[in-house]
Amino acid sequence: MTGKLNVIGVGPGDPELLTLKAVRIIRESQVICVPKGREEGSSLALSIVQKIINLNDKEIIEAYFPMRKTRTSTEVQKCRSAEVKTSDDVTSGLPDFRSSALSSDLDAKWNQTAETILNKLKAGRNVAFLTLGDPSFYSTFYYLYNKLVALHPDLNIEIIPGVSSINASAARAKISLGLGDDGIAILPANYMNNLKSTLEAFDTVVLMKVHKAFDQIVDLLQEMNLINKAACISQAGMEDEKIFKNIKDVKQEDLSYFSMVIVRK
Amino acid sequence: MTGKLNVIGVGPGDPELLTLKAVRIIRESQVICVPKGREEGSSLALSIVQKIINLNDKEIIEAYFPMRKTRTSTEVQKCRSAEVKTSDDVTSGLPDFRSSALSSDLDAKWNQTAETILNKLKAGRNVAFLTLGDPSFYSTFYYLYNKLVALHPDLNIEIIPGVSSINASAARAKISLGLGDDGIAILPANYMNNLKSTLEAFDTVVLMKVHKAFDQIVDLLQEMNLINKAACISQAGMEDEKIFKNIKDVKQEDLSYFSMVIVRK
Repeated sequence: MTGKLNVIGVGPGDPELLTLKAVRIIRESQVICVPKGREEGSSLALSIVQKIINLNDKEIIEAYFPMRKTRTSTEVQKCRSAEVKTSDDVTSGLPDFRSSALSSDLDAKWNQTAETILNKLKAGRNVAFLTLGDPSFYSTFYYLYNKLVALHPDLNIEIIPGVSSINASAARAKISLGLGDDGIAILPANYMNNLKSTLEAFDTVVLMKVHKAFDQIVDLLQEMNLINKAACISQAGMEDEKIFKNIKDVKQEDLSYFSMVIVRK
Repeated sequence: MTGKLNVIGVGPGDPELLTLKAVRIIRESQVICVPKGREEGSSLALSIVQKIINLNDKEIIEAYFPMRKTRTSTEVQKCRSAEVKTSDDVTSGLPDFRSSALSSDLDAKWNQTAETILNKLKAGRNVAFLTLGDPSFYSTFYYLYNKLVALHPDLNIEIIPGVSSINASAARAKISLGLGDDGIAILPANYMNNLKSTLEAFDTVVLMKVHKAFDQIVDLLQEMNLINKAACISQAGMEDEKIFKNIKDVKQEDLSYFSMVIVRK
């Protein structure tokens, strides 16, 4: 195994928000791997890079990521119990407890993706795996990471951080996410049962993917007298960017998969 | 007022983690402003940029930021009460409630910093204000922002997001900060009273500036049976980087102002 796998955060959308390191490594890579599947915004990650780097001499492979359905609370609990029993070290980066919630069919497709990447590395080719935003924030790459390491513990891999959509959205709306001793919480917004206590306990709450539960979020913010403290940002830095300094101005048709709410008390 | 103020996140330390946009704008700026004061890592932000951009033809000005002492719980409570009474819109980005905790002497020095920047802009010069990491995560710039906007509501200002030390640390330790429906909390670690409930409620907890309360954090993680789920990262991506996959291996002398703990359940 002589090739190196670089997992690269390409930023939130504006090609100028790629780092110098991302640009250099993509240029030096023979193979570009992009996840297939709506959740990861795969074609978007590739299109961002293509705007500033000529990829004509690269081999481009699509990695299959199964669409995960959102887990119920019971499933989450079940996965966590399994995790406690089977994994107690942090060295692997992430316990692979979620695979239990996936069917063996999907699991087989994952293995196929891992093997495709490993075959390129074994052939001595450097692979750049592109992820939207930053790899540490909700990138599905980490689902694959454990598989790769399990198959090849001596994998030569580097994670290149990028500008996350959270930082980009805050910048576009000119909102500080935290100062001094402030606590910040980041929640995928479909967890409505956590939201009230989180809004009570934290100075700043960032809600991701708000399109699914938007009305409930607005109702709760009204009830908690926080409605004037919430901004909504969609597609920060992209061509169809929308910034609402006050969430009350947002209509359902303004929302997309990439819409985010920042509540800053 | 014809000059533009660009507030630029220069990333966590590795000059290659500057974005293309940051590099372009710094090159196009006539004036570079760096905050003075240990907390912001001012000389560090400048030294990162100087490694890859020739600043010889730029005017470099140092902005005075008063050192804030960490507030007691009573002070925080007092500030929050004041905030509720005086500010109820989000349009200014951040309520300026903290100034009440500062002496008028420090306040005068702040005003001086704001005026220095505004004078450069009035003279038609573009100013690049450098901040370490990303401007939205704990950059003291936002303390200054309200002052600037109060003095000049039509200020031409743009915030350029950068790679935060949180994303860089997670990348170096190869830890996903969140996947799927996971909640993430970010806490400055000197708030020990919040830590237990936060560790209970969130999948991932990022603790900043852990050097002050490190032993208490380790004790609590032991007590909560989370000690094997915690990694410690110092100076991610810098020359003196230290990564401990297990927090138990950290000695007091390994810790610095930039040390961070990531608890990933």
